This record gives sequence, structure tokens and C-alpha cells, in this order.
Amino acid sequence: MRAVDIIREKRSGKELSKEELAFLINGYVAGEIPDYQVAAWAMAVFFQGMTPGETASLTEVMVRSGAVLDLSGIPGPFVDKHSTGGVGDKTSLILAPLAASLGMKDPMMSGRALGHTGGTLDKLDSIPGYRTNLSAREFRDILRDTGFAMTGQTADIVPADRLLYALRDVTGTVESVPLITASILSKKVAEGTEALVLDVKYGSGAFMKEPADAEKLALSLTHTGAALGIQVAAILTDMNEPLGRTMGNFLEVEECLDCLEGAGAADLMEVTLALGARMAVLGGKAGSVDQGLALCAAELASGRPRERFLANVAAQGGDAARLLALRGTYRSAFKGEVAASGSGFIAGIDAGQVGHTGVILGVGRNRADDTVSPVAGVEFHKKRGDPVSPGEKIMTLWARDADSLAAALPRLGKAVRYSPQPPAVSTQPPAVPAWPPVVSERCNTLSG
Amino acid sequence: MRAVDIIREKRSGKELSKEELAFLINGYVAGEIPDYQVAAWAMAVFFQGMTPGETASLTEVMVRSGAVLDLSGIPGPFVDKHSTGGVGDKTSLILAPLAASLGMKDPMMSGRALGHTGGTLDKLDSIPGYRTNLSAREFRDILRDTGFAMTGQTADIVPADRLLYALRDVTGTVESVPLITASILSKKVAEGTEALVLDVKYGSGAFMKEPADAEKLALSLTHTGAALGIQVAAILTDMNEPLGRTMGNFLEVEECLDCLEGAGAADLMEVTLALGARMAVLGGKAGSVDQGLALCAAELASGRPRERFLANVAAQGGDAARLLALRGTYRSAFKGEVAASGSGFIAGIDAGQVGHTGVILGVGRNRADDTVSPVAGVEFHKKRGDPVSPGEKIMTLWARDADSLAAALPRLGKAVRYSPQPPAVSTQPPAVPAWPPVVSERCNTLSG
Repeated sequence: MRAVDIIREKRSGKELSKEELAFLINGYVAGEIPDYQVAAWAMAVFFQGMTPGETASLTEVMVRSGAVLDLSGIPGPFVDKHSTGGVGDKTSLILAPLAASLGMKDPMMSGRALGHTGGTLDKLDSIPGYRTNLSAREFRDILRDTGFAMTGQTADIVPADRLLYALRDVTGTVESVPLITASILSKKVAEGTEALVLDVKYGSGAFMKEPADAEKLALSLTHTGAALGIQVAAILTDMNEPLGRTMGNFLEVEECLDCLEGAGAADLMEVTLALGARMAVLGGKAGSVDQGLALCAAELASGRPRERFLANVAAQGGDAARLLALRGTYRSAFKGEVAASGSGFIAGIDAGQVGHTGVILGVGRNRADDTVSPVAGVEFHKKRGDPVSPGEKIMTLWARDADSLAAALPRLGKAVRYSPQPPAVSTQPPAVPAWPPVVSERCNTLSG
Repeated sequence: MRAVDIIREKRSGKELSKEELAFLINGYVAGEIPDYQVAAWAMAVFFQGMTPGETASLTEVMVRSGAVLDLSGIPGPFVDKHSTGGVGDKTSLILAPLAASLGMKDPMMSGRALGHTGGTLDKLDSIPGYRTNLSAREFRDILRDTGFAMTGQTADIVPADRLLYALRDVTGTVESVPLITASILSKKVAEGTEALVLDVKYGSGAFMKEPADAEKLALSLTHTGAALGIQVAAILTDMNEPLGRTMGNFLEVEECLDCLEGAGAADLMEVTLALGARMAVLGGKAGSVDQGLALCAAELASGRPRERFLANVAAQGGDAARLLALRGTYRSAFKGEVAASGSGFIAGIDAGQVGHTGVILGVGRNRADDTVSPVAGVEFHKKRGDPVSPGEKIMTLWARDADSLAAALPRLGKAVRYSPQPPAVSTQPPAVPAWPPVVSERCNTLSG
């Protein structure tokens, strides 16, 4: 077998066998097949696509490139969620304790902020003492004891994905549905989850700008998940406006506490409950999405998910008392405000622009080795549909330094659009067709 | 400017600017842009193609990646020919002295055998003493004195092409018409030719199997040549059967001497005269292809091109007397014969299979660092259309060693097809449309 022949086959639109994919990927991880051959193959995949079976084979090969977490002896069901990345998207920090509180186990391996999208690990790292670099043993113990554990992808988990993703990032081959599918699912299979609820986002603040592209990815994920024997449910959600009331690392941890205390923003709670309801269905805790919605709402109201969250903070080395004491005060000294430059109604706040400005503020990063600030971010006082008068406060922002503040202020101002009438409720794009046993629906977040 | 953005643009089907191509190619040659990004770009080019202007820009950028031969002070016209590679294709060794004898200058930079196709340099190297590694000064002097000079591509000529070709070879991106076009034309522009006649071959022994693909390449070469300001004429020729009576290094030098002495095989002379006539037209020595054909035939009959050839041999360090003395005897001791296994007529001898067997014999090479033998090869006693009786001698072969001989014999036997009736004259595929000032016609070699 030769890598060049495999590239040529894919280039011609042929379906690669699992043996061929294993040869290519294992050879790459072992350093025997050079990156330029894998780059050419990835570009051929971009143009020729992959069959669902081929995508499943690639995912399995990637999983086997490294270790798989051993969760034996821990009672399930193991249910996780994953988002394709957004701005102000903090649902994981609410859903993991909620699922645990409902008797499920959520073995959550997350990522860091990159580009305009935020990262769960960066948010957790803003909690004093909280450790997101757990050993496999620690991860297992904390999962067993608190019902969920939050960590980064360790070096021995799906090394093929780390190598491949870094290569795709610099070779224009990120936007390939089968490669994205294999990347997401390989990590979820390796972490040991049995079921997975996916939040596939579309819009200016999402990776996929068009609902149709998000739908293609959702279908690929559910089909491939089915082929791999894990239950996958996907919903499409609107990411044209930042989700919830804040974007920032500690700011978003605080907002999650608000949600766990029954004071969450409507758009954020809609997405959170839509995802949580499907986790409950896949985990066997609810018979339908409607039952799941009611169950999740009642569970949150009980206060038990909040206790789970604080227990996990303590288990992962965080100082829960200090976390609570810092609420409302742990902010950068470089503070500014965006006042309304128009009147009538907020027609929208562009999530993509806010996300990119977040990198300037210190919330996110453009390169993997950039550092982020725990205390930078944006609070949104108005959102889409809210009435507004000129000069009224729309956002408060905190920047890592004075230069960042000066650079970010005008950009955030430009992210706001105004209209004389209230904006129309956005049209629902067509629902993702159901793929048994998958629950795949669309969730449109509506503000106001 | 970032390489990843250039890759993404090409991936989306956009036309790259000359500045973008210069950034990519110059960065690659300088070692600042890694091979994996260039590999991904090349695969995107494979799928999205290039406009004629874009191909011309790439060619210019590649030319400027290295030195350009200075032919100032040498009177022209400078006219060269190039073949896309074949089996038994030895026309260069006849055409260069013919063109010189007609008062043109042919600054010929050639390649070596690779895969099933032969290489002009390997043939010349079989002449005792002949040097194909000329310095720029030697090349210039010999061109001036004997009317043509034959050398390999030096390290300082189009380094971008050497790097790019090696990368394309292992990334499944060789078969891209614009990349092939830029590769061929960049070297020809750098060697200083003003006009170029191209022999674009199709069939089992050619790089392009289908006439339609050869036609696409011919059109791309003529269009891009026009954009670069050099005159390019292209003909398509049939490469389903080995050209002429021999395949081998010294064997083919001998056959060229036969041609220069008026005893060439019909198929080889047809292609040679078709190319030579167009060189004469582009060099201003003939007013039409028909005039060029007559001129070339008369010039060959004069014996002057043969004298030119021997003068060049001497000028490039070869021993002309010894070359002539070795005719008919300089052969490997490992000799075999293929006898007819059928009767009736030879329906064809598969050039692809003969070419691949040539690598086993020692005529060609699979890897650039393999060595070849001067004295290996095949002589064809029968060709397409010839009547044949069972047991009659069809080929004599000489191998580099006993193992090669044993491996090659059955393969060559299988390359021969028989038919009870004489094979039909092959249908002429549609002619390449003329592209002023280009002469683009089709030449079908017919045996018998």
C-alpha cells in the first residue's frame, strides 16, 4: 500500500477502505507518512467527500490512534453534549451538572477558545484553583463521585485528531463535513460516552454561516454516530447573536450560576433546555423531548444541579467559596461602555463581530499559544428586539489592557444594528430529518 | 498575505493574482512556506483548474525562481521542441541537428527516463564520453558553435519546478493541466527559446491515455505560450505503440543515426518530419507546414544534419569515431527473443507495457536515483500491421542481468496482440483548433 495511491483514489472519488484509512492515519501518527501527503488527501476529501461508512471507518481509525478512557465499574448512562462553537455559548457548564443531577454521567472533554468562538476550558480556568488538566485516573474518580468531570483532551487521546486538525487549520481543509464529523466523534467515542447531544450552530458567530451547511454537518454526525453504535441527537441553533447576557471567561461562569439559580436569560435557557431534554431522552430519563423539557426545568428549580456544580468545582481543585465571593466583582480594571447610536429597536448584535472583538479584549485567542484573561469580556444590557433610545447603555466591556479597550470599543459599537420597528421573528429553516434513534430538531433562539 | 488564505481562495475556484502566486512559490523555494501548504494548494488546483492568465503568471513566477540562460550575442532564431514523453521516442536527437543544419539554434534542456517513458539525457549518456551536465558557459558556447546543445536542467534553472514536481509526484497532483503547462513552459522560457514545437502524446505509452486529455494539455500549452510571448505549436501523436524500431539508450542513438542517414522507420520519420516542419515554420525557414516538410526531408537527405550531430557529439566530449564503431555491437550479453505466439497480423504492441518492462531491463527507472544501462533495450522486428507466422521473431531484447531478462521476457510477449485481419487505420481524433500564431494539428503515426 502506498499513500500516493490512496490520495489518487480519493481524488478520483473512490470510497477508501478502512485498511487504507488505517494505513494513512496510523502512518501519519507514526511519522512514516509525511504531512504533505495527508494535506493533499485532506484537500481531495474536501472536494470528493466521504460516504457515511467511510467517515465511520475514519473515526474508528482515529479513535484507535490513542487511548480510550476506561469507565468500567462506573454506572452509566454516559451522556455528553457537544457544541460546534459559538459566542457566549456556555451551555456545557449548566448541562453537565444538570445531567449529573438527573442520574446520568457526563464525561466531558472540552476545548479552548479559538478565533471568535469561546472555550469551555478557558471559562473553567477562570475559577480560582480549578484544574482542567486531569489525569485519566482523576477524571474517572471525579466523574464517579460528582457525576461529571471536565478536562482537556490529553496527549494520549486521539493523537491523530490533534495532528490532523493542526494540519487542516493551515491547509484550508477545515471546512470538510466528513473530516469535522470524524474529529468531533472520535474524541467523544474515546472519552467513553454512549450517547451524545449535538448543538450544531449556524450564523455569523458560528463555524457554519448557513443553516443548510449546519444541517449537512448535523446529518453527517447523526448518520456516522449511528454507524459507530452511539446514539447521537442533533439540533441546529441560531448563532447570529451572542448567547445569553455575557461573553467572557469568569463572566460566563457567573452567568451559568445565574442559570443554575433560576435566573437565566431566555435565549440561553431555551438552548440549554432543548439540549438537556434530549440528553434526558437519550439517557433513558425521559420518554419524550417534552417530558425531558419538564424534567430539566424541574431539576434546575430544585437547586440540585447548582450543588452538583459546586461539588465538581471543589473536586477539580477549585475554591467554591471564593468563586461565589467573586461574583460581580472579578473584572478587569479596563472598563468601557457602548451606548446606543440609534433609536427604535435593536435589530441585532452581530455575534461574529463580537466574537472577533473578544480576541482583542482577551477573552479568546487567534493562536493556540496565546494567553487569555479571566476578567475580560462583555455584558449585554440590550439584545435583539429590545427597545432603545440614543445614548442608552447597550454593553459594558472589560479589556485586558488600555490598548485592547481602545481597539475594542468602536468595533463593538459597529456590531449593533437598529431598526425603527421590532425585528421579525426569524423564519424557521427546515428541520433536520429524524434519523432513528436520533432526535434531530431545530431550535431557534428568540430574544425578548 | 497568508498561504492558507491563498489555498482557500483557490479551493473556492477564484483566480489567483500573480502577487499571490509569487508569494506562494517564492516562499516555498525559500523554505518559508511548508510543503504541506503547497501540496494542499496543488490539489485545489487539480480540482479547480487555472485560467490561462493565471497559468501564465505561475509560469513567469516559476521562471523567476531561478536563473535564465543568457543567449545574447548568439544569432537566432531559437527554436526548441518538447515531448510529453513516450516509449521509443527519440525524435529530439534527430530534430536538434536538423534544426541547426537549417540555420536555427536549439537550446535543448532535457530530462531523464522516469517510469515507462524514456529520457533524452540517458540516451546521450550512452555515447562514450558524452557529457550532459554542461555549465551555462559550455552550453552557450556549444549552442553557438554547433547550432544546438543538449544538457540537463541545472540546479539554478527553475528550482521551483524541481521542488514542485517532486511534491506533485508523491501527492497525486501530477495530472493537472495548468501545473503540467507551467512545468513545461517555465523550463523552456528559462532556456531562452523563442519558439517551441510540442509533441503531446496520447495512448498507453503516454502520460495522457486519452486523446481528449492530450488535446486539453495542447490547448493549455499553446494558450499559455501565447500569453508568455513565445510561439508554441502543438501536435498530438499516437503513443499506443513504441515509436520506431528500438527502445533503449544506445539502441536509440543508433536508430537516430539511421534516420540521419535516410534509413528511418516510417512511423518515427512521420513524427520527426511533422515536428521538424513546424520548427522550420516557427523559425521562419518555411512559409507553410508543407514547405517545412519538404525542406526537412531535403535537408536530411543532404547528410548535413548527420554531420551536425557528430560535431555536437565531439563538442560535448563524446567520441564520435567510437560511437560509429560501436554501432550494432554495443549490447548487453543478456539477450533474449520474443517469438510470435499467434498468427495473422500484429494488431498492436502495447507501448505502456513495453515501457514498464524497459524499467526491468534497465532502460528506464522508477526512482530518480536508480541507474540505467546503456546497453539494455528492445529491437522490434515486427510492428502493428505486419503479417506474422507462429514462432517468427518479433522482438530481440537485451537486459542488464539474467534476472531482468527472465522477468522481462514473458511481459514483452504479453504486450503483443494478434488479429486474423490487418488492423484498421486508427480513426483520427478531432484536430486541435488553431491558435494563432500557433500551428496545432494532429499527427497519427501509422505503421506498415
